[in-house]
Amino acid sequence: MTEPLTLPGIEPLSVAMLLYPGFTLLDLIGPQSVLCWAGTIHLVAKTMEPVTSDSGAQLVPTCTLADCPRDLDVLFVPGGFGTFAAMQDRELLAFLADRGARAGSITSVCSGALILGAAGLLQGYRSTTHWALHDALPALGAVPVKQRVVVDRNRISGGGVTAGIDFGLVLLAQLRGEESAKLVQLMMEYDPAPPFAAGTPEQAGPALTERALALMGAAAPTADAPPARA
Amino acid sequence: MTEPLTLPGIEPLSVAMLLYPGFTLLDLIGPQSVLCWAGTIHLVAKTMEPVTSDSGAQLVPTCTLADCPRDLDVLFVPGGFGTFAAMQDRELLAFLADRGARAGSITSVCSGALILGAAGLLQGYRSTTHWALHDALPALGAVPVKQRVVVDRNRISGGGVTAGIDFGLVLLAQLRGEESAKLVQLMMEYDPAPPFAAGTPEQAGPALTERALALMGAAAPTADAPPARA
Repeated sequence: MTEPLTLPGIEPLSVAMLLYPGFTLLDLIGPQSVLCWAGTIHLVAKTMEPVTSDSGAQLVPTCTLADCPRDLDVLFVPGGFGTFAAMQDRELLAFLADRGARAGSITSVCSGALILGAAGLLQGYRSTTHWALHDALPALGAVPVKQRVVVDRNRISGGGVTAGIDFGLVLLAQLRGEESAKLVQLMMEYDPAPPFAAGTPEQAGPALTERALALMGAAAPTADAPPARA
Repeated sequence: MTEPLTLPGIEPLSVAMLLYPGFTLLDLIGPQSVLCWAGTIHLVAKTMEPVTSDSGAQLVPTCTLADCPRDLDVLFVPGGFGTFAAMQDRELLAFLADRGARAGSITSVCSGALILGAAGLLQGYRSTTHWALHDALPALGAVPVKQRVVVDRNRISGGGVTAGIDFGLVLLAQLRGEESAKLVQLMMEYDPAPPFAAGTPEQAGPALTERALALMGAAAPTADAPPARA
């Protein structure tokens, strides 16, 4: 576990964030940067070896699947170009199904929603995911909603990559109050100023969207095409 | 180095990002998530051991100070509660002064600007930093500017923590064109939607600002007070 910098006066949260090969670092570090102020974060992986993200940078787990606490306030899954492999990993899915059966909040950012879906945790729940992947949700039992953060009962999901910061603040507000979330937002100086209006297909237009789909398709392994990177 | 997911048709960048104990993960992962599409990122530290961030989570370096390429397109320093210790680390400062003498762009997010200043790299340059630390810049020779991203010749700085995403996109646009930056912005789904207006002292108001200053003061070690965490 990582040591908490806990806000005074709140009941600390117990959070598990799943690491798997090819996860996207920012999907996880966005909410981790919010929730680290609110309790203990377990970075959970199959082994204690560093886990390589889809950008190549490696994060060190704090516990294995087996050693992760059984009762969690928050269970979280990031997305990444390794998502499709993770969706076929029975050990990861069994872990998520087990902890998800008792977790207070079952959550994801980006394509992490597809992994929750593969673990059977989104059946009948509204969810968001990366803009390129909404069509993949219904086959997993989820109802896609094009929204930055979607809350349906105790399932809370964020859109692609950078949505993890908005997601983290919404989750913290829900679990420990708006004042806590605002305090963390201030310490993180979260008053974003995107230099361009290009964060969605609608803003970016069809030409840039085609280029993005081609690039992401080349980077994401599927059953038919090998991964662009090991 | 981490393997690139390089955008087609651009000349890859050589980027060094400094890791030191107590850096803030999101300060670094924001721009890393942008720049990983544009070349090779070296995560540089004194040794190859994992480096513990101020949230407790550990990132694995890809090279030591000695092994870092001598000629860089981008030299980058994140902030964090370990900033004040890093400002007194002669080995880190000598590394920054050396690479900074030849780097194409000399850059920081959050309190990383103070470390660049301590290395003598901001003398006479306009710079931004975390909102709580602007008053510390003049003693280091820099001219504080309250702006999310500040560009002064080849010095480019971002404000606190989350400003690293805006900073990364501005930097990429400057070095490899607006189309590259917009493409990455789209893949990162960067269309932020903060749930509250609390990202600056002006928005958050004086009561929350006082609480934030007290919390950050307790977490950041100074000469007079020991660190709140190891």
